[in-house]
Amino acid sequence: MRLIIAVVQDKDSVKLSDRLVKAGIRATKLASTGGFLKSGNSTFMIGIEKERVDEVLDLIRQSCRAREQLVNPMSPMGNQIDSYVPFPVSVQVGGATVFVLDVEKYAHY
Amino acid sequence: MRLIIAVVQDKDSVKLSDRLVKAGIRATKLASTGGFLKSGNSTFMIGIEKERVDEVLDLIRQSCRAREQLVNPMSPMGNQIDSYVPFPVSVQVGGATVFVLDVEKYAHY
Amino acid sequence: MRLIIAVVQDKDSVKLSDRLVKAGIRATKLASTGGFLKSGNSTFMIGIEKERVDEVLDLIRQSCRAREQLVNPMSPMGNQIDSYVPFPVSVQVGGATVFVLDVEKYAHY
Ligand code: NI
Ligand code: NI
Ligand code: NI
Repeated sequence: MRLIIAVVQDKDSVKLSDRLVKAGIRATKLASTGGFLKSGNSTFMIGIEKERVDEVLDLIRQSCRAREQLVNPMSPMGNQIDSYVPFPVSVQVGGATVFVLDVEKYAHY
Repeated sequence: MRLIIAVVQDKDSVKLSDRLVKAGIRATKLASTGGFLKSGNSTFMIGIEKERVDEVLDLIRQSCRAREQLVNPMSPMGNQIDSYVPFPVSVQVGGATVFVLDVEKYAHY
Repeated sequence: MRLIIAVVQDKDSVKLSDRLVKAGIRATKLASTGGFLKSGNSTFMIGIEKERVDEVLDLIRQSCRAREQLVNPMSPMGNQIDSYVPFPVSVQVGGATVFVLDVEKYAHY
């Protein structure tokens, strides 16, 4: 048995939850902030048999991997000004930090 | 030293906290949602000497084990209708998912 | 790779966050309550190379160690009464409970 702890951005957490449910894998979600990733993240705890660890890592990578995304930046004053033509810029979103821990004993009551 | 991570339903978490306090065992509670159990759960982190792991597991099982409970279901419309006689049904409540992890180093400052 | 889980009082958590950032160490913070410490605490999860564990433990000890602090107690009625001269008393604040776990596999997407 292994315990997988995955810190992912909030925007990816619904996608990850859906894929875990479809694969029949149960997870517990903890509210978390900052740190490994930009603000707004979730921490998933997933208990899984040793043989299925790579399957879970694949699901996490597919749901959460860091990628470029074009966004229209706000004007310097924080709102749209007539004379300001926003230029789309590429920012990195997503990403996941994952720890796989060995479980000495697992119990279910 | 071991770190016990236990996901339990909210309705059982006060009972478990009380029993841990009586046994002189300190725990930290994390807010958590969904997954291993139906919505509304708590995650306990309990640091404990290796020799007392079974004692803690007993307290968790006694406080949280899955059991049947009779409930009066709501009418299909979500409220009580005169012509609707609710029939008590048995549902499963409680349950706990527990991971025992080895602690390489423990510090207290 | 190691995963450090540290439960610290809220009042020390900003100081610890600042020192971790300055050392270039990323942490995820989980909301937590009670237990190891008096009410109002935070749980830090810090992934770190084995060689830097002691450095992180030093930062935690410097930011959070238990210490005496003089406080002016409230009057028995909970507010200041003219005839009541508060006598400063020494209380213990701070403190940290830290678990270092071995990480079987670490991934970053
Ligand atoms: Ni990255
Ligand atoms: Ni079950
Ligand atoms: Ni202490």
